[in-house]
Amino acid sequence: MPRTKPPAAALLASPEDVEAQFYEALQRADLDRLMAVWADDDEIACVHPGGPRLSGHAAIRASFEAIFANGPIPLQPSGQRRLQALGCAVHHVVEHIRVVEAQGERSAWVLATNVYVKTAQGWRMVTHHASPGSEADLPSPSETPNTLH
Amino acid sequence: MPRTKPPAAALLASPEDVEAQFYEALQRADLDRLMAVWADDDEIACVHPGGPRLSGHAAIRASFEAIFANGPIPLQPSGQRRLQALGCAVHHVVEHIRVVEAQGERSAWVLATNVYVKTAQGWRMVTHHASPGSEADLPSPSETPNTLH
Repeated sequence: MPRTKPPAAALLASPEDVEAQFYEALQRADLDRLMAVWADDDEIACVHPGGPRLSGHAAIRASFEAIFANGPIPLQPSGQRRLQALGCAVHHVVEHIRVVEAQGERSAWVLATNVYVKTAQGWRMVTHHASPGSEADLPSPSETPNTLH
Repeated sequence: MPRTKPPAAALLASPEDVEAQFYEALQRADLDRLMAVWADDDEIACVHPGGPRLSGHAAIRASFEAIFANGPIPLQPSGQRRLQALGCAVHHVVEHIRVVEAQGERSAWVLATNVYVKTAQGWRMVTHHASPGSEADLPSPSETPNTLH
């Protein structure tokens, strides 16, 4: 018997929709919503900053479950650069994580490469590769993100 | 007047061909051959392990020129996992770098995500995102790399 699709799945009509849902799910620690953005493929892969390569749904889900045990991630995607090809999109994102501590606000920056592929079920994420970055990775104001191809 | 294509360009008939040329060029410190694998697009991007995001041909070329000033890179790609979609391929590679020193051989491991896109000129690299890895990132023998979709 076919499973009922979660309502969110129907909304993923573009790479931008997938990316918006991915970051919203991180900001809300919503594991099901987060996992719904990934393609149904054993070769999906995720690298957290400084972490190993995780392949497939089970390993990726377990990693985010462990991360969400500490609550939502206070991050804002910015500095996006996008390359759009036929049936595939690569987004380069600078993630800004703001943590408020007793001593004041602390910022961390992450460089993420997100790859999206058009599947029979719409656009889905196939890769999230993240590594430590810095504020200097934000594009300068003259570098306007655009879509080519 | 159209420029004469370098002979190497005609060989890039698949993502595997592009990847082979990319790693051969690294092993030989052949800058022109290395740059020939990249797509002609301002949004191509490269992240070296621990480094910033580099966008576009000029920045990527300058970074490899600086790296090649120290000679070829003694690296072997291994542990590949591949996701192939329409007009796009994502390869997850574990790069093994062996450096022979007076004290003996030293190994370093790098996790690389390589994204290839089919262009009017054949397959080309659009993203190389590399970050420090470890030997544990090699797939276990039971994990046979395969191509889906």
